Amino acid sequence: MRVKIGIVTTSDRASANVYEDISGKEIMGTLSSYLLSEWEPVYRVIPDEQSMIEATLTELCDNENCCLVVTTGGTGPALRDVTTEATEAVCQKLLPGFGELMRNVSLQYVSTAILSRQTAGIRNKSLIVNLPGKPSAIRQCLDAVFPAVPYCIDLIEGPFLECNAEVVKVFRPKK
Amino acid sequence: MRVKIGIVTTSDRASANVYEDISGKEIMGTLSSYLLSEWEPVYRVIPDEQSMIEATLTELCDNENCCLVVTTGGTGPALRDVTTEATEAVCQKLLPGFGELMRNVSLQYVSTAILSRQTAGIRNKSLIVNLPGKPSAIRQCLDAVFPAVPYCIDLIEGPFLECNAEVVKVFRPKK
Amino acid sequence: MRVKIGIVTTSDRASANVYEDISGKEIMGTLSSYLLSEWEPVYRVIPDEQSMIEATLTELCDNENCCLVVTTGGTGPALRDVTTEATEAVCQKLLPGFGELMRNVSLQYVSTAILSRQTAGIRNKSLIVNLPGKPSAIRQCLDAVFPAVPYCIDLIEGPFLECNAEVVKVFRPKK
Repeated sequence: MRVKIGIVTTSDRASANVYEDISGKEIMGTLSSYLLSEWEPVYRVIPDEQSMIEATLTELCDNENCCLVVTTGGTGPALRDVTTEATEAVCQKLLPGFGELMRNVSLQYVSTAILSRQTAGIRNKSLIVNLPGKPSAIRQCLDAVFPAVPYCIDLIEGPFLECNAEVVKVFRPKK
Repeated sequence: MRVKIGIVTTSDRASANVYEDISGKEIMGTLSSYLLSEWEPVYRVIPDEQSMIEATLTELCDNENCCLVVTTGGTGPALRDVTTEATEAVCQKLLPGFGELMRNVSLQYVSTAILSRQTAGIRNKSLIVNLPGKPSAIRQCLDAVFPAVPYCIDLIEGPFLECNAEVVKVFRPKK
Repeated sequence: MRVKIGIVTTSDRASANVYEDISGKEIMGTLSSYLLSEWEPVYRVIPDEQSMIEATLTELCDNENCCLVVTTGGTGPALRDVTTEATEAVCQKLLPGFGELMRNVSLQYVSTAILSRQTAGIRNKSLIVNLPGKPSAIRQCLDAVFPAVPYCIDLIEGPFLECNAEVVKVFRPKK
């Protein structure tokens, strides 16, 4: 099975080319450092519109068959922050442990980490994970949660992801 | 913009004057020690009735224009504990990180902290935060979450709160 | 009041006798080591069918009058993992602190702990708690959350559980 990973930046300004999408590139670089398996990014930069985010997540899961879709941006308390809502709307199961751990890790750096509504969930055979919008926080959060990602994808019958053990300590329980 | 902060004690007994509302006064004292900005409390003591709690929260947010509303009481597992339900009903966005952090902090003192269903959320331009009912736990919880409150209020377009850095380390990320 | 505790193993294979239900027995042994009060287990092994799990939980709470019902299995991200959904469907109140603490504790052992969707909640006068499916993780999770269980059952007007203080440090706040 060919490994595709969706990377979705939700940002009114990045999607209007007001500024460069550094966060999406940070995700791309981090995943490249983790993965030994060959993979192909499916990359989207879209505005903070809930219906458009839902449509994009659905397309990447259902049509592109991405086993993993990571988002950046739109998880704060502001009115235009709707990535969390879109994620909850398209997932059949939510995995609250991802958000809990990412907030815990971010709390070591900034007390405003509790304002993040980041979550994760399963849509059919895809895992969707919300990451922070700030580039510097992306690596911190991915380092925390990624060790559980390959086994999660095994459980939902996705491809077997091989990772570089010197960069990320992936864990798969023995059966 | 004039700063108003709602303080809502939900307690059948305090609202019937069976005992004094020490929790509400503890919140008042703690916020006074934090804030350098001038502010005015809007204070209510009401019974544990979900519809009345919802109406009070709505009034403080929509009519009184409180940028922050804190509640005390009604977040446990008992049948009459409905402050969490009322908060969830009136908020457009929930902020699970507040409850997670308050439970974590309270766990350092009592193992029954996991029974608390405290949450927080956004209603329009107001932040609502549930605090514990027990006076001694109020300061512990406020000390933990308040550092994120002024920036949250910035993000929802409320007033700029100035705080006493010797009492509380408020954090605002640089843009 | 006679103390009954429900123990529900949800597993397609254990219910079909493909393998022995070690997890249910682990729960039985752990609770026996905690409790000084006389108690009677009400034990069920059922497949991973949401409607059957809901019916079983309802029966144990409403007909058997179990003050506590613990489940094992069915809280992961796979399609057949529906114990969490069933628990949420039959509870009037959810207690997110149980899941948060169990995931935190399990994270000390395995990074895949964040994949668990374990929760807990109240149905009338019964507390329902999801435990992991893996036998080795059951004791770790029960040791973490059980100290809050007897007081929770007090609050929902169940029986007063007496425990062995040398095995588990139960906490009841002073009124």
